[in-house]
Amino acid sequence: MTTKMAINAKDIFRNQHRLIRFIEQSIRLCSNQSLKAAQQQQQQEKSTTADFEISASVNTQYTHAPEPIKHNKDLGDLFKASQMSVRLATPQQLHTKPDNDEELGFGKLFTDHMLKIYYHKSLGGWQKPEITPLENLVMHPAAKVLHYAVELFEGMKAYRGVDGKIRIFRPDMNMARMNLAAQRSGLPTFEGKEFVKCLSRLLSIDSEWVPHTEAASLYIRPTLIGIDPTLGVASSDSALLYSILSPVGSYFKTGSGDGAVSLLADPSYTRAWPGGVGNRKMGSNYAPTINVQNEAAARGLQQVLWLYGEDHQLTEVGTMNIFMFYINDQGEQELITPPLNGLILPGITRDSILAMARQWGKFKVRESVFTMPMVSELLNQGRLLELFGTGTACVVSPINRINYMDQDLYIPTMEQEKPVHELIRDTLTDIQYGKVDHPWSMVID
Amino acid sequence: MTTKMAINAKDIFRNQHRLIRFIEQSIRLCSNQSLKAAQQQQQQEKSTTADFEISASVNTQYTHAPEPIKHNKDLGDLFKASQMSVRLATPQQLHTKPDNDEELGFGKLFTDHMLKIYYHKSLGGWQKPEITPLENLVMHPAAKVLHYAVELFEGMKAYRGVDGKIRIFRPDMNMARMNLAAQRSGLPTFEGKEFVKCLSRLLSIDSEWVPHTEAASLYIRPTLIGIDPTLGVASSDSALLYSILSPVGSYFKTGSGDGAVSLLADPSYTRAWPGGVGNRKMGSNYAPTINVQNEAAARGLQQVLWLYGEDHQLTEVGTMNIFMFYINDQGEQELITPPLNGLILPGITRDSILAMARQWGKFKVRESVFTMPMVSELLNQGRLLELFGTGTACVVSPINRINYMDQDLYIPTMEQEKPVHELIRDTLTDIQYGKVDHPWSMVID
Repeated sequence: MTTKMAINAKDIFRNQHRLIRFIEQSIRLCSNQSLKAAQQQQQQEKSTTADFEISASVNTQYTHAPEPIKHNKDLGDLFKASQMSVRLATPQQLHTKPDNDEELGFGKLFTDHMLKIYYHKSLGGWQKPEITPLENLVMHPAAKVLHYAVELFEGMKAYRGVDGKIRIFRPDMNMARMNLAAQRSGLPTFEGKEFVKCLSRLLSIDSEWVPHTEAASLYIRPTLIGIDPTLGVASSDSALLYSILSPVGSYFKTGSGDGAVSLLADPSYTRAWPGGVGNRKMGSNYAPTINVQNEAAARGLQQVLWLYGEDHQLTEVGTMNIFMFYINDQGEQELITPPLNGLILPGITRDSILAMARQWGKFKVRESVFTMPMVSELLNQGRLLELFGTGTACVVSPINRINYMDQDLYIPTMEQEKPVHELIRDTLTDIQYGKVDHPWSMVID
Repeated sequence: MTTKMAINAKDIFRNQHRLIRFIEQSIRLCSNQSLKAAQQQQQQEKSTTADFEISASVNTQYTHAPEPIKHNKDLGDLFKASQMSVRLATPQQLHTKPDNDEELGFGKLFTDHMLKIYYHKSLGGWQKPEITPLENLVMHPAAKVLHYAVELFEGMKAYRGVDGKIRIFRPDMNMARMNLAAQRSGLPTFEGKEFVKCLSRLLSIDSEWVPHTEAASLYIRPTLIGIDPTLGVASSDSALLYSILSPVGSYFKTGSGDGAVSLLADPSYTRAWPGGVGNRKMGSNYAPTINVQNEAAARGLQQVLWLYGEDHQLTEVGTMNIFMFYINDQGEQELITPPLNGLILPGITRDSILAMARQWGKFKVRESVFTMPMVSELLNQGRLLELFGTGTACVVSPINRINYMDQDLYIPTMEQEKPVHELIRDTLTDIQYGKVDHPWSMVID
């Protein structure tokens, strides 16, 4: 009797996947209408912003294709997505989906499933990937990740396109960055393509969690942690590569109401330094920022502008790269961002913006150091047009005020008639939400 | 029938604690003999090293008593040791103790029990302390510690004195440092005295794990981690303060056989930077060092000598503070160590050595920056006598070679007739192992 009941329940949750697919296909059919509408609108808009057309082919001259990763000789077996095992959540384990996608906040809700891949050198290397219900991790209290910050992560997003299809953005870039961070942390490397295949499977299983709105998306958080239960500060012989998914709205609560953020620029705090790991997405770059962020909040400011050096170079803002659009000494419009000199996280949004802007060729684009005294002077001369942060979580985050040396600098980012940061955001989100076809967008089947 | 059996087993492990106490008392009675012998030997030694007598009273002029911690207003309840609950390991859960205390290595074996204290702001603050069998931690895959390195730790040791009593060394200093790190990490603070009482209870329960030899000790690893299951980079509203215990032998495997270590000094890597957290024992300071340590090992060197700045200042060695004993420009013997300028971990062994040496008054003692060019020149002039690292894990670790700019600098640390580093080690271990009574040593009842 109980056995029979159990089988029935099993059948239901085994077939849940197909059921979801069926519902999805229906939704796609419906949304083909909205796709056509969106594309028509796009065509009309193009005629007005013809200067900044999106080219479907990316000129390789403008992008840096990530180099293939070199694995350590003693790494052992690599994992393959084809070896994956899937254990679906029982109906009791399924979570309620949020009612309103637009009030999700950031990283508070998680989907029904997760991806896990263990690495044990003693067992020959990487083990088989598994998708399981979202569940707690169990680890020894001496696990390296809990003591020495042997951990790194990535931030990606899955977007529900106007055609109902789910897309991810330049995943090869995240994989390359993740492997570089692994090497820097004494953690095992892996084949990025295989991991993306695993992630795609996870996304496909939890596809109903990808919000049906452009105001939200499904945040993907791949994480790699060292779990050896030993207290020596050393490379990891055991590790866990996993990913959780979280439907997210807008990252920042802004103070001004118009979406712009205010910043604390205090030169007494430093985020990164030469010979450190500021250019790797390692957990160790984040804990030291929390208290400084609290100080900013206590002063009524939303984010920290990280300065470096005696000349107070602008490096990053919060967890974002920073861009300035201004009139240069030659009287030309120029987009400038700090160079990848080891102090800067090599942002994928940053790289995409640089490539797009260079391909547009409508204003100067430069990777170069710029300082707070320069910002002050440009403001005084009316030559600073826009300042904004960029990243996966926020796409583009305009800045309207900097508190620097106890003075408020007001930035006219939101006062421009045709602001470049909006153009950039629209172009990127058009690619991400499938309004235009683009090689940077990868459709999840 | 099974119930009765279960009760019997329960009785046995409930009484295990008393049994251990009884055995311990017997051991103490026996070792009183060896105490007397040791004290006699000590008296004889004192006559030969009369210049460096240990004063039982520490002149407060030479030590910095840690300031009481200021808790955040919204911290909530503090915990008290008197609220502690204890769940002892079952006989099946007890681990086999190592046969040979002298070949333990570092942090590979753990005792039978652990201490856990949860903090949940939503439940009013700190919860009741609990001692449980050593067991895996269970945490949400989004726990902040796994993503943003929201974690800090301490390193302490319990020593089995020549009188059989168990002692810990200056625990107030560890507690003060731990609370400063908590503040810097957005983690909840606590009353150090109460936590030391909890640790004492844990040590008392696992007292048989404190090795009966001066060649080993029981390493205490208090750890504080942020466990909120949310992906925002922010302060922790949920945390776990815990401690595990590990019987340890010598920390370093030395290459030379005489106990001295060789170092890689590569100015292209930096451990800490002004405005960072190099002076706090946070996990984030350690992950970035692993790869550099691997590079040292690949070059046949045991540790990394961390340099800073264009003048290549010596800051720390591996996970230790660094001291140099040399002939200064005035022709005097001088002990020098880098100052607490934010780049240096405020080591408790470091502080103790400075206080002792200043109280001895037999040579100059100075906290001041010194550089690799200075080290080279002193070596050339035959004025560099000793170079050594200091820390809880190793006490004192003499250095015999530095590989700097692809050149080997040979340091005559092991060639001195009456080396200061040995005198320091002997004095500290005499206090730690209870050969002399000293206010820095705290006996665990």
